[in-house]
Amino acid sequence: MATTFQLDTLKIRMNDAALQRLDLHHRIQRALRALIMDGVLGPRVKLPATRGLAKSLGVSRDTVENAYVQLHRDGYIVRREGSGSYVSETVGIELRGATRKRAKLEPKPGAAQPGTGLSRRGRAILDSGGVSDQQVIKAFATGLPETRTFPTGVWERLQRQVMKDSRDHVLLHGDPQGAEPLRRAIAAHLNLERGAKVVPEQVLVLSSTRQALYLCAQLLADADKPILMENPGYFGARKAFEAAETRIVPIDVDAQGIRTDLLHADRSGASCVYVTPSHQYPTGVTLSLERRLALIAWAARHGKWIIEDDYDSEFHYDGSPTACVQGLDRHQRTLYLGTFSKTLYPGLRMGYMALPLELVDAFSRARSIMDGHTPQILQLTLARFMEDGHYHSHVRAMRKLYAGRREVLLASLVKRLDGVVQAVRPPGGLQIPCLLPQPGWTEEKTVRLAERAGLRLPGLSRLYAGEFRQLGWLLGYASLTAYEIEDAVLRLSNALSSA
Amino acid sequence: MATTFQLDTLKIRMNDAALQRLDLHHRIQRALRALIMDGVLGPRVKLPATRGLAKSLGVSRDTVENAYVQLHRDGYIVRREGSGSYVSETVGIELRGATRKRAKLEPKPGAAQPGTGLSRRGRAILDSGGVSDQQVIKAFATGLPETRTFPTGVWERLQRQVMKDSRDHVLLHGDPQGAEPLRRAIAAHLNLERGAKVVPEQVLVLSSTRQALYLCAQLLADADKPILMENPGYFGARKAFEAAETRIVPIDVDAQGIRTDLLHADRSGASCVYVTPSHQYPTGVTLSLERRLALIAWAARHGKWIIEDDYDSEFHYDGSPTACVQGLDRHQRTLYLGTFSKTLYPGLRMGYMALPLELVDAFSRARSIMDGHTPQILQLTLARFMEDGHYHSHVRAMRKLYAGRREVLLASLVKRLDGVVQAVRPPGGLQIPCLLPQPGWTEEKTVRLAERAGLRLPGLSRLYAGEFRQLGWLLGYASLTAYEIEDAVLRLSNALSSA
Repeated sequence: MATTFQLDTLKIRMNDAALQRLDLHHRIQRALRALIMDGVLGPRVKLPATRGLAKSLGVSRDTVENAYVQLHRDGYIVRREGSGSYVSETVGIELRGATRKRAKLEPKPGAAQPGTGLSRRGRAILDSGGVSDQQVIKAFATGLPETRTFPTGVWERLQRQVMKDSRDHVLLHGDPQGAEPLRRAIAAHLNLERGAKVVPEQVLVLSSTRQALYLCAQLLADADKPILMENPGYFGARKAFEAAETRIVPIDVDAQGIRTDLLHADRSGASCVYVTPSHQYPTGVTLSLERRLALIAWAARHGKWIIEDDYDSEFHYDGSPTACVQGLDRHQRTLYLGTFSKTLYPGLRMGYMALPLELVDAFSRARSIMDGHTPQILQLTLARFMEDGHYHSHVRAMRKLYAGRREVLLASLVKRLDGVVQAVRPPGGLQIPCLLPQPGWTEEKTVRLAERAGLRLPGLSRLYAGEFRQLGWLLGYASLTAYEIEDAVLRLSNALSSA
Repeated sequence: MATTFQLDTLKIRMNDAALQRLDLHHRIQRALRALIMDGVLGPRVKLPATRGLAKSLGVSRDTVENAYVQLHRDGYIVRREGSGSYVSETVGIELRGATRKRAKLEPKPGAAQPGTGLSRRGRAILDSGGVSDQQVIKAFATGLPETRTFPTGVWERLQRQVMKDSRDHVLLHGDPQGAEPLRRAIAAHLNLERGAKVVPEQVLVLSSTRQALYLCAQLLADADKPILMENPGYFGARKAFEAAETRIVPIDVDAQGIRTDLLHADRSGASCVYVTPSHQYPTGVTLSLERRLALIAWAARHGKWIIEDDYDSEFHYDGSPTACVQGLDRHQRTLYLGTFSKTLYPGLRMGYMALPLELVDAFSRARSIMDGHTPQILQLTLARFMEDGHYHSHVRAMRKLYAGRREVLLASLVKRLDGVVQAVRPPGGLQIPCLLPQPGWTEEKTVRLAERAGLRLPGLSRLYAGEFRQLGWLLGYASLTAYEIEDAVLRLSNALSSA
């Protein structure tokens, strides 16, 4: 640690790239502060007189004086009448032992001890690994739509209009429940396309289905109030529920969807059930009408909530999609979840819920505490995009595109992997479940082989709670062109046959 | 309930505005489904033969057949060879008693029973009332910056560039930790302007300070691990902490900021302390250097975390702002929180944290579960806005503007309300604390009188935990022009003198 002031050291610090944009007196002050904080100038070291330092640096005396005033005000130096300026004693003492080397102060990635200093929930979240989203287009990642066809030109034009028409409004805070025009557009869409019965006052605009699931877990479940969930089921939902320190009770799924007889028999004290009625995740099964009605009867009788995740119902290829549970439920027990991540694009970060009216206040307030609201400019642009019919057109075009891609994938699987996998033909959605009926082909092994060929095979087994496991994959195809699909299946076939 | 099919009823339903955009066979199918769901067509009612209905409606037989096929597939009707199509028995039985009147099905806003069916946390959040943000410019709401001066033209130009350069990337999912260019820009900004020591790997991009506080509460505190908090302190932080079912232990603030002697004496088992060192909320006090060092020493010695909310440090008017606690802390115990809501605009929904490296994984994973990430297009646009120097220029211009507005408000208060209020002159920030030293002027009374004059007086008393309360207001002024400030103070003065 230096015991005297070195002009060169100060000059070097002042030339630090980070300081170049600052005024001269700020540069002097920051450089001196850095030298004190790093211990280069230790406690009681005398600083040069302002006049002398000004001359050495070729600046005015006022400039140096300004820097010293600020350092003094902040407590880094003391100034003694007639004697001069010194590095503060206190700073030195308090920083002692941590000031020797700059290198020591750099964060060391290796030194992190996972989980130390976290809450119980924090450790659970760390251990869960979080949710990894696919950040590039890759066969056969699930849940990704085709983004290359999105009409960004139209979107940008509408966004400019919104900025012009509602500038003052979009720059300020918005309603935590969501912008009214968007809630109106969403309600109209749900009533028309999904057979829902929704008024705009029931709609809550969110950033994603994930946020909706997180809110459900926080607001409906407690440590002693579990959540019932389809088994197998969507891993994102499981993670959101687990992060809320709640217990998950699995309910089996069969060829008609979730087994409502098991629901009626459940005595866990659960407050709600999570279901994916349009295309069950991952089996692709559409919940039968009878089961839908039995589900509603169960909820109404016992005062339970139905969390209906309608994540990709817009993409139903064989006939039109069945009306949603929400529209059949006359008892206001259904929380409907929808997303624009699949119909528009995931980077948009926009989803929504249609809530029973009695839950609207609690959910909106939770949102106001959790993160406020979704950016207004995006909400109002989306409202226009829907009002002007662009949403409807885009979804219709994508439905046609994906239906074709589904055929390409099914045909390729038959052509290249017959005898290895047994593909299930779901009536809709963005992915196809493939079972591995042959002994010898384990999920683990095939996933590893595919990975070496640069392919991702999302496994089915991780979607199960407990023991029973259907081995296989869930192949996403919507974001891939016909050529990309055929190429990927060929590469997969080669990878597997090389083993 | 009708026992026979009425053609007119079907035609009326088919003309429903909501169905006009659909294909003919969809219109027929939806109209029939609606009649069945509403109980207008009861169980076992026979539907007309496809040929007959086609003729009556003037459409092709295929069109009607398509509609019937879908209704049959969804379970709404049964079709008997040689006999015809009937409304399904099951539907009727299950919907019985809830199908009589459409009016009965509309949600009734009055019928909501607050809190029924919510979790414990859900009820607590509902009761807390959430956080109400000011959605229009209004004197004297706190925390709002001037949004009318924001360079939207520059922003839009940069956004178009980003969309052009990184279209494929911004439409897909992003890194839950935040886009790398933005993390780099934030780290550079913090190191230069705030005396921080931050590498981009420590930065977590969020949607707001509120989200940062919520994450802190979830990840650092448990029911038995309280959070220490400045008293008086920021209500938004209190709500975020309470929503996590954690206990808050208040620590008094004096003229040098939070009392670190009380911190050292605390035996509550708390894991962290929440502080606002730059301009304490609401007193405006800057935490002294000695206290900063004592705070760090406490955290390092006991393995506690410091949550440093640096919410408006960019707006420091008297000299440059003191370096942040994070930069002084060589022990990686500080979680630094910053926001763009005040330096740019609240509707942007962008904030960030600079975390100790050992906490980065847990916080990023929690974000990935909670809501994924912040929209990529906004992140990359902001990164360019910062890189190109627009951020720095805008903040500098606003700093000058607000410093002038602070003087206008202080002068107006002296001119119009001398003897009623005693304004405190904070060194920075977007609001001024005003005390009510005179008996006779209660906070409640003045707030009520001001409200009648269309003014909002945010009270100080709600910012205290427990008994001791400094009566007065916290007057926001940054979003108001000089004229608006003078006019509002005059109106306030008139409102108070009329009492």
